[in-house]
Amino acid sequence: MNQGKALLAEFIGTAWLVLGGCGSAVLAAAFPEVGIGLLGVSIAFGLTVVTIAYALGPVSGAHLNPAVSLGLWAAGKFTGSSLPGYIIAQVMGGMAGAGILYLIASGQDGFSLNAGFAANGYGDHSPGKYSMTAALACEIAMTFFFLLIILGATAKRASAGFGGLAIGLALALIHLISIPVTNTSVNPARSTSQAIFVGDWALSQLWLFWVAPIAGALIAGFVYRSLLDE
Amino acid sequence: MNQGKALLAEFIGTAWLVLGGCGSAVLAAAFPEVGIGLLGVSIAFGLTVVTIAYALGPVSGAHLNPAVSLGLWAAGKFTGSSLPGYIIAQVMGGMAGAGILYLIASGQDGFSLNAGFAANGYGDHSPGKYSMTAALACEIAMTFFFLLIILGATAKRASAGFGGLAIGLALALIHLISIPVTNTSVNPARSTSQAIFVGDWALSQLWLFWVAPIAGALIAGFVYRSLLDE
Amino acid sequence: MNQGKALLAEFIGTAWLVLGGCGSAVLAAAFPEVGIGLLGVSIAFGLTVVTIAYALGPVSGAHLNPAVSLGLWAAGKFTGSSLPGYIIAQVMGGMAGAGILYLIASGQDGFSLNAGFAANGYGDHSPGKYSMTAALACEIAMTFFFLLIILGATAKRASAGFGGLAIGLALALIHLISIPVTNTSVNPARSTSQAIFVGDWALSQLWLFWVAPIAGALIAGFVYRSLLDE
Amino acid sequence: MNQGKALLAEFIGTAWLVLGGCGSAVLAAAFPEVGIGLLGVSIAFGLTVVTIAYALGPVSGAHLNPAVSLGLWAAGKFTGSSLPGYIIAQVMGGMAGAGILYLIASGQDGFSLNAGFAANGYGDHSPGKYSMTAALACEIAMTFFFLLIILGATAKRASAGFGGLAIGLALALIHLISIPVTNTSVNPARSTSQAIFVGDWALSQLWLFWVAPIAGALIAGFVYRSLLDE
Repeated sequence: MNQGKALLAEFIGTAWLVLGGCGSAVLAAAFPEVGIGLLGVSIAFGLTVVTIAYALGPVSGAHLNPAVSLGLWAAGKFTGSSLPGYIIAQVMGGMAGAGILYLIASGQDGFSLNAGFAANGYGDHSPGKYSMTAALACEIAMTFFFLLIILGATAKRASAGFGGLAIGLALALIHLISIPVTNTSVNPARSTSQAIFVGDWALSQLWLFWVAPIAGALIAGFVYRSLLDE
Repeated sequence: MNQGKALLAEFIGTAWLVLGGCGSAVLAAAFPEVGIGLLGVSIAFGLTVVTIAYALGPVSGAHLNPAVSLGLWAAGKFTGSSLPGYIIAQVMGGMAGAGILYLIASGQDGFSLNAGFAANGYGDHSPGKYSMTAALACEIAMTFFFLLIILGATAKRASAGFGGLAIGLALALIHLISIPVTNTSVNPARSTSQAIFVGDWALSQLWLFWVAPIAGALIAGFVYRSLLDE
Repeated sequence: MNQGKALLAEFIGTAWLVLGGCGSAVLAAAFPEVGIGLLGVSIAFGLTVVTIAYALGPVSGAHLNPAVSLGLWAAGKFTGSSLPGYIIAQVMGGMAGAGILYLIASGQDGFSLNAGFAANGYGDHSPGKYSMTAALACEIAMTFFFLLIILGATAKRASAGFGGLAIGLALALIHLISIPVTNTSVNPARSTSQAIFVGDWALSQLWLFWVAPIAGALIAGFVYRSLLDE
Repeated sequence: MNQGKALLAEFIGTAWLVLGGCGSAVLAAAFPEVGIGLLGVSIAFGLTVVTIAYALGPVSGAHLNPAVSLGLWAAGKFTGSSLPGYIIAQVMGGMAGAGILYLIASGQDGFSLNAGFAANGYGDHSPGKYSMTAALACEIAMTFFFLLIILGATAKRASAGFGGLAIGLALALIHLISIPVTNTSVNPARSTSQAIFVGDWALSQLWLFWVAPIAGALIAGFVYRSLLDE
């Protein structure tokens, strides 16, 4: 892989993940009468990964997520020296996506960041008012299964070509389960970009959306390496 | 196949099926205004199988369901000596998935297992109050077609690689049809895990969700072996 | 192909198309608050074809529809001598699927065939009260594009393996467009099975759902053979 | 490629895109109680591309969109001399699709083009009343990512066969995000056909739906060629 191209691909891909996933939530989820709902938002998040995986997967691996890069490293599938560059490109890409979304969304009268801008939260800021403990358990479990699926679906023994579809659909599924709990993160870059725009409570709860996804990803990486690898 | 890895894969995969499928039903189906509805739950169940099939299919076959293991055995595609291990791993995995779901779901004020926890039922406990006869017919028919699709889509003549997608989408389709009738089982492990948490009526109706799926699966296995096999 | 296996596959596959597609409409479309709606029914119809295409496509071609068999014949891709057997197996399969659906659906208090049983209709029996002319135009156009997609996606130049997915998704798309107009047929076998159960107006309007789909399919077959074939 | 076949394929494919995508919006989106909503319309648009890509992709490349043809040209993947023919075929195909849709839709009492006929618009004619600036930003950004995905997913290094799926799903995703903003164009042919039927405001706003998609596509083409190509 060309390192410059790989970082550009992570930047563009994460921008698309945030613009597409959070964008569908902010712009279309609650549109009167015909809104796409949490089902549409879940599908949108999944399709950002499906589309980038097939378009730019061969360039960078299409991680688009610091927890994914760290989980792959824990499993021995990604070199530690590439981690800082990838994570910086992902966070910057997420902020670029959030910036484009802000430019579009603010073109509607009455737009306000107070509506949440699809930021992640727990307790009073969980969509369904789930506790911090539930949020921790949920984000750890979701990221654990996400990484196991990524590792299995990209193993040499796996059906070639289907990895991008399986991984993107896994992200859609994760959202189908867990939007009510935390608005679903499993991705610190996606959480950071929205928290920076919302500020306030979103920034003060941001720690959980770095700690829990990374914990789940690392556990999955070590479990996979010890027990399920080829 | 490595037998220890296979059992671990069945355990993890069935945990994901229950956490993902029943989790979407418990946490997100009836979320106010933007809930995912029965369509979202159906897609979630299907995607648990799609994702595990591509991730862990090469490890264990990704049965995730005692009726599937028994149907494959009836068709001559799975050795009888592996049945007990697989079925125990599936039931234990389902319970692990239900346990994680309980941990998350109970983090919301007002949570109660009396809402059903996505357990299967008939008569007064059918979502649409369908009779026991309708429930039996429905579970037998759904599992019959499920196994025929599994057997056909994994035959040597089938398009390589597409089996996981076809089988997972079959499970989504089965839920699109039959959630109103029984909450959809076609999987005794998934029924058992939820019944144990709910207790009471769910346990006393659990027999049907072992008998009917297994009957449908065995019929499909014998029909396939006699009439449709290569 | 083994002719006996092929006819059995058409019978089973068309039963699944009717049980799955019409079943989702009858049992789940309008379920209170969380019903799957026309979107869920559209996806269900599409997935019946996706699943059978991968499971039994190599056995019979998975036509599941007299208009498909006739369109393939018009394009020179199917032998005329096989038409009668295929069409009879499809119509009988459709009736078997409708029979299983009746057995399940009638297990709910208050069930009545007067609600329509997902039969096709026009004028007063069109879901959106569309005229007979609109119904004719719609069924001809939808079946025309359906057959073009089938012919193109199964051509030698097409991507191997993706045909079943493209064709099933085409049927889902056709339903997304046209359920309000005619309840969507494009398939005389599916129309016949439901009309026989409903009787009355459904039988007297049944002619349109043989004439229009077959006309659209034949036009597509000849256009493809003359202008687009390899 | 045979040039006559290619132009016919673009004509038929774009007719299907408009009939399917705009047709689902006009006929089914707001059907009482069980309407498919913006989610169903998004899926319908995506599936028009998925189905034509697998059916006619080998004939013409299945651009179905002047912005796509121009973006591919900017990236050096399509010859300039073929542009005029492709664009004319696309616009004429779009009008044919809109004509068939008009024939069907006008078969319902009370049908009126004043309801919009799925035309694209901004300001007072944006579904969510988004400003012209937001509409420009949105259409440019959406088409930029659309073309990047098209270019990446059809590159030699990409997984063979999955391009049609990734590209069609990208169009579904784009609609999930942006229908509230402009009714989603990213395709001047689709905008032109609907504007001609609606006339009036739709024609006077049509310029934006040529300028913005083409700008986004050209930027993507040059970025891809300079930075991401193989």
